[in-house]
Amino acid sequence: MIGLSKGERTREMILARAAPLFNSKGYGRVSMSDLMQATGLEKGGIYNHFRSREELMVEAFRYAADVVRRRVEERTAGPVSSADRLREMVAVYGEFALQPPIEGGCPLLNAAVESDDADPALREQVAEAMERWFRAIRVTLVRGIRRGDVRPDVDVEGTATLIISTLEGAVMLSRLYRTGAHMQSAVRHLQSYIESTIRA
Amino acid sequence: MIGLSKGERTREMILARAAPLFNSKGYGRVSMSDLMQATGLEKGGIYNHFRSREELMVEAFRYAADVVRRRVEERTAGPVSSADRLREMVAVYGEFALQPPIEGGCPLLNAAVESDDADPALREQVAEAMERWFRAIRVTLVRGIRRGDVRPDVDVEGTATLIISTLEGAVMLSRLYRTGAHMQSAVRHLQSYIESTIRA
Repeated sequence: MIGLSKGERTREMILARAAPLFNSKGYGRVSMSDLMQATGLEKGGIYNHFRSREELMVEAFRYAADVVRRRVEERTAGPVSSADRLREMVAVYGEFALQPPIEGGCPLLNAAVESDDADPALREQVAEAMERWFRAIRVTLVRGIRRGDVRPDVDVEGTATLIISTLEGAVMLSRLYRTGAHMQSAVRHLQSYIESTIRA
Repeated sequence: MIGLSKGERTREMILARAAPLFNSKGYGRVSMSDLMQATGLEKGGIYNHFRSREELMVEAFRYAADVVRRRVEERTAGPVSSADRLREMVAVYGEFALQPPIEGGCPLLNAAVESDDADPALREQVAEAMERWFRAIRVTLVRGIRRGDVRPDVDVEGTATLIISTLEGAVMLSRLYRTGAHMQSAVRHLQSYIESTIRA
């Protein structure tokens, strides 16, 4: 926050408090009074910093997605093989199911499901954030193929889809039933898939 | 609808029109005027048949989940082996991703993600409907083990979790990107898993 103007700090504070609210209650269910209570600001104080509710929602989503992405990147950095990096990515998401870095679970899943038919601006941001996740998996696989620690015949797109689908579906089940069993089972499956089909 | 009283028919009509609305827009985003427009009734005419908005949402969810369940049951009935029945279940869900039997995609996914932190009454109904899906897979596997067409060492719970997680995650991606590619890839993975790990 060093180097930010007072206005920028207030904007950042609003996002930091609005993001968990939208992510847990749902973008459509958060009321103005929820936002005022969470930020300690009046309506005008909030909309000084955002042109519209739509802009606030989109920026809060980006904030939430960034929190998760940074946490995943911290945990999956380091000079490991591609297969190990994928295993770690899967394990980190597994832990997030019940202890998410931001209240309400996975921002991508929540905002994707809420926006797909109802909110084109939010949906576009979610598609972009999801694309970054796909890209991270693709880059990891392609680098592994080049270095020889990933099988050269691996289905790059199919693997990315499988990892993301299975993890996000398991997040949904874990949060619905408030138990870690489904995620544990999904993580086990994906890690054994990584060993049998991806690692060279 | 034969044998229903006029009141019962009106209630049924309200559910048939409210269910796709809640399922596509989200339970929290549907307004009273959306409901009035969809049903052609005034507020009082709707709430003659439901004690509260909560009851209407829960009943509309059950209606939507029943539509999907009946479509799956129709397609997966018949004297086939357990492995074939699971393959068919997966294939049917694959088709639903972009052509759902009820507007808005999978009612279980939508309502699970929306209700997990925000709506305990709806969440309880979703957990029950999801449990029916788990049970259908369990019963299919256990019957297959008894008849000898499913391997006796199959992980029943893990398989149910894998099928449901992967399909629901792929539904989310398919609807976010409006393309069938992710679901095709998920279906291929699950069907190959059924052949390699489940079929005796």
